[in-house]
Amino acid sequence: MSAAARRLGACAPAAAPIRLAGPLNLNLSAAKRLPLRIPRPSPISSLRTYEYTTRPAVAAVPLHSYEPLHRRTFASAAPVATSRSKLRAPAAAAMVAEDFETVLKGKYPAKEHAKRVVQLIREKVPDANGLLYLEGRMTKLQEDNDSPEHFRQRRYFYYLTGCNLADCYYAFDIQSSKSILFIPPIDPDDVIWSGLPLSIDEALAKYDVDEVKFSTDVNNVLSSFSSANPGSTVFAIKGQVSEHVKLSAFQKQDLSVLKPTIEVARVVKDEFEIALIRKANQISGWAHKAVIERTRTAKTESELEAAFLEKCVSHDAKEMAYHPILASGRAAATLHYVDNSQPLAGKLNLLVDAGAEWNNYASDITRTFPLNGKFTPDSRALYDIVLKMQIESMAQIKAGVLWDDIHLHAHKVAIDGLLSIGILKGDKDDILKARTSAAFFPHGLGHYLGLDTHDVGGNPNGEEKDILFRYLRLRARIPAGSVVTVEPGLYFCEFIIKPYLEDPKHSQFIDKAVLDRFWDVGGVRIEDNILVTENGYENLTDAIKEAADIEAAYRGE
Amino acid sequence: MSAAARRLGACAPAAAPIRLAGPLNLNLSAAKRLPLRIPRPSPISSLRTYEYTTRPAVAAVPLHSYEPLHRRTFASAAPVATSRSKLRAPAAAAMVAEDFETVLKGKYPAKEHAKRVVQLIREKVPDANGLLYLEGRMTKLQEDNDSPEHFRQRRYFYYLTGCNLADCYYAFDIQSSKSILFIPPIDPDDVIWSGLPLSIDEALAKYDVDEVKFSTDVNNVLSSFSSANPGSTVFAIKGQVSEHVKLSAFQKQDLSVLKPTIEVARVVKDEFEIALIRKANQISGWAHKAVIERTRTAKTESELEAAFLEKCVSHDAKEMAYHPILASGRAAATLHYVDNSQPLAGKLNLLVDAGAEWNNYASDITRTFPLNGKFTPDSRALYDIVLKMQIESMAQIKAGVLWDDIHLHAHKVAIDGLLSIGILKGDKDDILKARTSAAFFPHGLGHYLGLDTHDVGGNPNGEEKDILFRYLRLRARIPAGSVVTVEPGLYFCEFIIKPYLEDPKHSQFIDKAVLDRFWDVGGVRIEDNILVTENGYENLTDAIKEAADIEAAYRGE
Repeated sequence: MSAAARRLGACAPAAAPIRLAGPLNLNLSAAKRLPLRIPRPSPISSLRTYEYTTRPAVAAVPLHSYEPLHRRTFASAAPVATSRSKLRAPAAAAMVAEDFETVLKGKYPAKEHAKRVVQLIREKVPDANGLLYLEGRMTKLQEDNDSPEHFRQRRYFYYLTGCNLADCYYAFDIQSSKSILFIPPIDPDDVIWSGLPLSIDEALAKYDVDEVKFSTDVNNVLSSFSSANPGSTVFAIKGQVSEHVKLSAFQKQDLSVLKPTIEVARVVKDEFEIALIRKANQISGWAHKAVIERTRTAKTESELEAAFLEKCVSHDAKEMAYHPILASGRAAATLHYVDNSQPLAGKLNLLVDAGAEWNNYASDITRTFPLNGKFTPDSRALYDIVLKMQIESMAQIKAGVLWDDIHLHAHKVAIDGLLSIGILKGDKDDILKARTSAAFFPHGLGHYLGLDTHDVGGNPNGEEKDILFRYLRLRARIPAGSVVTVEPGLYFCEFIIKPYLEDPKHSQFIDKAVLDRFWDVGGVRIEDNILVTENGYENLTDAIKEAADIEAAYRGE
Repeated sequence: MSAAARRLGACAPAAAPIRLAGPLNLNLSAAKRLPLRIPRPSPISSLRTYEYTTRPAVAAVPLHSYEPLHRRTFASAAPVATSRSKLRAPAAAAMVAEDFETVLKGKYPAKEHAKRVVQLIREKVPDANGLLYLEGRMTKLQEDNDSPEHFRQRRYFYYLTGCNLADCYYAFDIQSSKSILFIPPIDPDDVIWSGLPLSIDEALAKYDVDEVKFSTDVNNVLSSFSSANPGSTVFAIKGQVSEHVKLSAFQKQDLSVLKPTIEVARVVKDEFEIALIRKANQISGWAHKAVIERTRTAKTESELEAAFLEKCVSHDAKEMAYHPILASGRAAATLHYVDNSQPLAGKLNLLVDAGAEWNNYASDITRTFPLNGKFTPDSRALYDIVLKMQIESMAQIKAGVLWDDIHLHAHKVAIDGLLSIGILKGDKDDILKARTSAAFFPHGLGHYLGLDTHDVGGNPNGEEKDILFRYLRLRARIPAGSVVTVEPGLYFCEFIIKPYLEDPKHSQFIDKAVLDRFWDVGGVRIEDNILVTENGYENLTDAIKEAADIEAAYRGE
């Protein structure tokens, strides 16, 4: 999904930056981290987790005064990510696959998430005491219709429960670290139509919580707790408390700290979360390959969208992380193309930006390839520039690096590349200073990825005046354990480029005659999902992207 | 979708019954109705439409005192529907296909719909004068996320506009029959990401309205109109007027009549609407066939769901009319099974209840077939009973028949059938009187179908005490031009049947030993979409359902 896939003005208010400091209460050793084999499923208590250590910011990286520094980083005993990411041998792929499937046999580590959140709250409110209270998404019918709306679990609730049921509540006692999940009681009238719901015992076995009760008990539990703990606080999220729920049982209600704190906690993923993103990537990778293969016979974008969905759904990935983009020819220059139904005849390339979720965790992958299985020289030249932008950007990734700097570097590679094929002309430093490359690469290099496709904690600057950074959704030093998308692109969109051609400040750097050869190329974007590690990165995306592999996949090899 | 697919208690309030009387202002001759060939696309003004005539209620059909009588019926020069519905020759199918595709080349008849609504309003408010005012669905972001919610156009708005864009408004001048559609203005910031929106000229060419303006003009138009027409009324729908829209410009505001009146108008479909339902059925029929073929290799319900979606999406039907049900083995007894991800190994049958939309019009089709391509004797026996329930029910359909009577007849066929295979024992009249058949056929025979899967105007009785009719969503005399689902089913659901086995009133009629042979059969439902005509019906569903055809499709023949 394009880094600027939604206008900043339209997105939810960014969380207030919260400075991370001090090690979290995670007690597992770095030596056990992925990609080691695990012989058998482990109970949740012994599941390996990345170790977090505190270290000073990398001295060589310039500080941006307006950016909070995420000091928490990954300690990693893994092979250097830059080499790891190049492994494509089947043996290695199989090992990784087996590995994350084993991790996923455990429970979603909801309890550890709750503890992390409490620790972060205590950094702001040292004497915090009382309950965290969260509600999941409630069942809601479509307007004027008796079918329910599409269900999307509230991410804040999911992060602390791992529970994807509707109509649930959750409470976590800060003092004792005990959690209670409240699930819907049995409604006999409902059972006739929908079968028996999850029982209390089943929920207890499935979710990483200490107790399960029916949702009819919520107010009793709240009032008992507040009576037993006079003066304690209930922490909840404003606008996400049902009317019938009586937080008023508590003397103190804090509706402001919990939400931004969970957002900070969510930035750094643990092993289980990374396994979920890996799984989403694995299935989406298969689906991208299916799209390439389907181009041999497909007549429309719709057929290619169908091929993508078919592969995901048949592998049980029934939710898309975002509306898939299947844009042929010039449509690839429309960053948020949603039509996906045009004929393919006469078009050069296809841009596919599509990713499935796995248990609410997103993948976000873009590939661009020739519809007839063979790049034209111009398409290939552009593809190679974008691939270079991506590879060089990834090479700069390691814990503590400022994302802005990598984004800026990608523009420099773009300028070099566009100069080399003649679309740009003049001095590269002058071009960068003029911001002319934004005509062709108008969006950000990437964003955080997790429970949301544009995951929380990116701290975008909606007031940014510099066009090069205006749509960059991630304005932070990236900590180890965070997952980012790296998605450079170059596009030939008349609506975007025209003002640049009409402005002498930019037009002096653009060779219109060369540019005119490229409109039918449409656009190229290449996007992978990257785990930031202490010493580099690991590429979680194994969808094929080398030109030769794409051409071979088209041939069905 | 099961006729009782949502509990009645959960559905929107039924429209107040409005008595239809007098011919509508539709001026096209009966001789031109489907399935005649149309040589070329016709402009909307000459599109053929069913003619409505007024005739007395069919004398032979007993009247239910609590049911309004829909007197408007179809005059039809078509072949008798009962014979038409049996046509399965490829030539006939091709003719029908070409025919509705030709109809669909015209515009959605929004203007005629507006006129019908006005005529119906005038039956309640004879001196009605002023504006009809409607709003479409507005763009809405997902909670805590920058992606938009799934877009589903408001059906009331669509019925009068045929417009599927977000953020639109509509006004119709009752006196002059002039309509204005308001579409979103161009937002340059949006164009960068989404491309150019529909222009005013394009909208005017695409929709059956007299004028198109930008949505920023809504209040100006409303206030100009009310100034020019003092004392006139604005008719709108309560809860569907944006805060910024000033209906207060009108002295009189009627927020109660418009919605139920549109619901009455929607019951009787015109040719264009029937063509839309046909198209949705055609694609869904292909998708059902794809599911049968995929069972040859599939290992899970997910793969079969994928096969269904793949076929629909590749044919541009990207919206499902409802959540598909792919239930293997005993899961088929869960009427609203939504899991769709269990392994198929060891299961006997699959029940598929799935249908795509076409331009917001629903199809709703259920098929049940053996997973290994060959019915067992018990499965086949049950299948044949349900098929008989369906065929006999359809044979009773014609304009003016009370749906309750057909539903009752289906129960009688079920009782005969269950007696014949030994699950029931005793006297069939006693069994009917005891309502024991509701243990196996617990839902309604069908419902109206149109812009909603459970379409408006069915007038279900949420207070019904008779278990045989409690979940029947359609309690009316069915007029010609209405479309109903006919979806009998027999199920072996322990949760539903157990209370019957424990109650001597019912257990005396059930042979437990025979019943025990059937639990693994799960359930059988067969559902088609039926157009009610003056003299009978036409089956709009061409998904295969004969046992022999299903077994042949499995073999890929």
